Amino acid sequence: MAMMIKRVASTAARSLLSSSNSPFTRNLHASGGKKKIVGVFYKGNEYASMNPNFVGCVEGALGIREWLESQGHEYIVTDDKEGPDSVLEKHIPDLHVLISTPFHPAYVTAERIKKAKNLELLLTAGIGSDHIDLNAAAAAGLTVAEVTGSNVVSVAEDELLRILVLVRNFLPGYHQAVTGDWNVAGIAYRAYDLEGKTIGTVGAGRIGKLLLQRLKPFNCNLLYHDRLRIDPELEKQTGAKFEEDLDAMLPKCDVIVINTPLTDKTRGLFDKDRIAKCKKGVLIVNNARGAIMDTQAVADACSSGHIAGYSGDVWFPQPAPKDHPWRYMPNHAMTPHISGTTIDAQLRYAAGVKDMLERHFRGEDFPEQNYIVKEGQLASQYR
Amino acid sequence: MAMMIKRVASTAARSLLSSSNSPFTRNLHASGGKKKIVGVFYKGNEYASMNPNFVGCVEGALGIREWLESQGHEYIVTDDKEGPDSVLEKHIPDLHVLISTPFHPAYVTAERIKKAKNLELLLTAGIGSDHIDLNAAAAAGLTVAEVTGSNVVSVAEDELLRILVLVRNFLPGYHQAVTGDWNVAGIAYRAYDLEGKTIGTVGAGRIGKLLLQRLKPFNCNLLYHDRLRIDPELEKQTGAKFEEDLDAMLPKCDVIVINTPLTDKTRGLFDKDRIAKCKKGVLIVNNARGAIMDTQAVADACSSGHIAGYSGDVWFPQPAPKDHPWRYMPNHAMTPHISGTTIDAQLRYAAGVKDMLERHFRGEDFPEQNYIVKEGQLASQYR
Repeated sequence: MAMMIKRVASTAARSLLSSSNSPFTRNLHASGGKKKIVGVFYKGNEYASMNPNFVGCVEGALGIREWLESQGHEYIVTDDKEGPDSVLEKHIPDLHVLISTPFHPAYVTAERIKKAKNLELLLTAGIGSDHIDLNAAAAAGLTVAEVTGSNVVSVAEDELLRILVLVRNFLPGYHQAVTGDWNVAGIAYRAYDLEGKTIGTVGAGRIGKLLLQRLKPFNCNLLYHDRLRIDPELEKQTGAKFEEDLDAMLPKCDVIVINTPLTDKTRGLFDKDRIAKCKKGVLIVNNARGAIMDTQAVADACSSGHIAGYSGDVWFPQPAPKDHPWRYMPNHAMTPHISGTTIDAQLRYAAGVKDMLERHFRGEDFPEQNYIVKEGQLASQYR
Repeated sequence: MAMMIKRVASTAARSLLSSSNSPFTRNLHASGGKKKIVGVFYKGNEYASMNPNFVGCVEGALGIREWLESQGHEYIVTDDKEGPDSVLEKHIPDLHVLISTPFHPAYVTAERIKKAKNLELLLTAGIGSDHIDLNAAAAAGLTVAEVTGSNVVSVAEDELLRILVLVRNFLPGYHQAVTGDWNVAGIAYRAYDLEGKTIGTVGAGRIGKLLLQRLKPFNCNLLYHDRLRIDPELEKQTGAKFEEDLDAMLPKCDVIVINTPLTDKTRGLFDKDRIAKCKKGVLIVNNARGAIMDTQAVADACSSGHIAGYSGDVWFPQPAPKDHPWRYMPNHAMTPHISGTTIDAQLRYAAGVKDMLERHFRGEDFPEQNYIVKEGQLASQYR
């Protein structure tokens, strides 16, 4: 209860700040003195030293340790995020800032938020903050922000990769190469050109748009479903057709790509019934979030052949357990969550996190598009 | 010797035909009566019946059996192509037309040409006739033709797939998914965006041009080396820069794609010395022909890390033996020869072969761009 009052006060102060930049509120942040900042990333282990730009792992620590510590802040970095004895849990009660990523998500539950009495700011190094209970964060007056745009190109490129991997039946061919086999028929009987096929994206936000642009020269029929139509100029440029009704679009698609955030509305969107509405033999690419799909329904449809191929880098939960059905279903091309954490993306989201920390310490606003929760409000895509 | 005379006469007749369409030469072909046509394709086995459009395998026989036999021709189809006891060898002495493919190449040596006393026409179902001794075919007055354009889109799409597979370090991720592992760092430390990288194509013919067009929206630096500059309009459209000197282009490239035919000039083009000229950590994609590379030099450079990734679907010889070094070298993404034999491509090259057979029986010329050897002359790309 005391916490809630503090929170409200803090929110009010920040609200004041954003309109006035008063010396008082500036002071609140700038001379708040030593902050405790916790970063939760994936471990680099033996790979950490193999690339000087590998800043996204625990050891790389976004390349901001020296800078933070030179300012007197405490910076704790870990990959140990689950359960009551984890390093993250230990620091929850007194951390000020939590930096997390979608690739190795620190699940920030309402319970953790309640325990985090000093928490001011949740930063996502990357895009997608659904590992945070955003409603709880909003109710607690916290700010949640992402590095919007930092890896949209990375993800869009990776989606095109996965479309081609499935359309061309690439993996059985690779398997033959490494096992000493040579059986062209075993690949070719279900390998197709992408040209002339119908590709539909469920969601045409930043990533969906970049995918449509990259698909344009392949001479496909491009469809998109979203709440709103995209810019008419981009529609013209890509030739993509708007489909207002998702269930009307699905049966037309040879390939479906999921490009929607995980929200209360999209959780479990592709359940057994919706998958049944897709064309028999559909290929599905999902680099958005695993929980948009019904896990078992996807596995069953891959087994029956209704889905002829499924590829993505997102699972629920993450890391995916050893017995996750998507590891074993036929015709999948799954990977761990990697598409948004290329070396190029890491450098961009590390720079974005540093920029937001600098602004936070100075009591300045972030770039508007970075906010996921601001002053008790969720960004529009999460509402 | 008698054969050579016959050949010269035949060539003269065909030469006459192409200018005059005289009833005499027309008759020569049209009422030549029963022809023996042999097709050498890869076996479909259990996959043959899995797709009604799978016409490229032995069982599918390009879908022209009924049509050929209804005209009284004999049509023998096999995958048995090597050695003195093979089905192909048995029919060499009296076949009139040989249809072969690059995917399961019937090696047509000078010796086989010498034995093939009735041979008139060599058709390649696909593109790339380097499995035929073209000089021997020209000297013997034979016609060699391909279905030019039938699978250029298929191959170009597949090249982009392979570029992305290597740039994104896709395969170690897939391997983790199927083995129950989850180690984002082991993938991410060498996964990159394609955006901003320098891609050079060695050869900018039909396939190279299609690749450049498909790469355009990825915002890369595009370079190309060829004997001639491409159309200025296409250069402007793709932003690709001409590199007259191959060895000057190579050190600039993060990714090199081979798009040149196999000729006396390109055989072994990428030997140890030329690979050493490439940037350390270069990625190489080769869907052109395996023999353009020095096999062991590629394997050694992959082992040393000078080549950071190599992907292609072409080998020498084909099928690749179980002990081919490219099956075992690190960081490869090889497959059997499949990029040009998608179902879409099969339907196109089957139609193209049928069209040329019809024209041949009627004594008509083929589309000019299909000729590889015509009236003793090799097509320009093979000279």
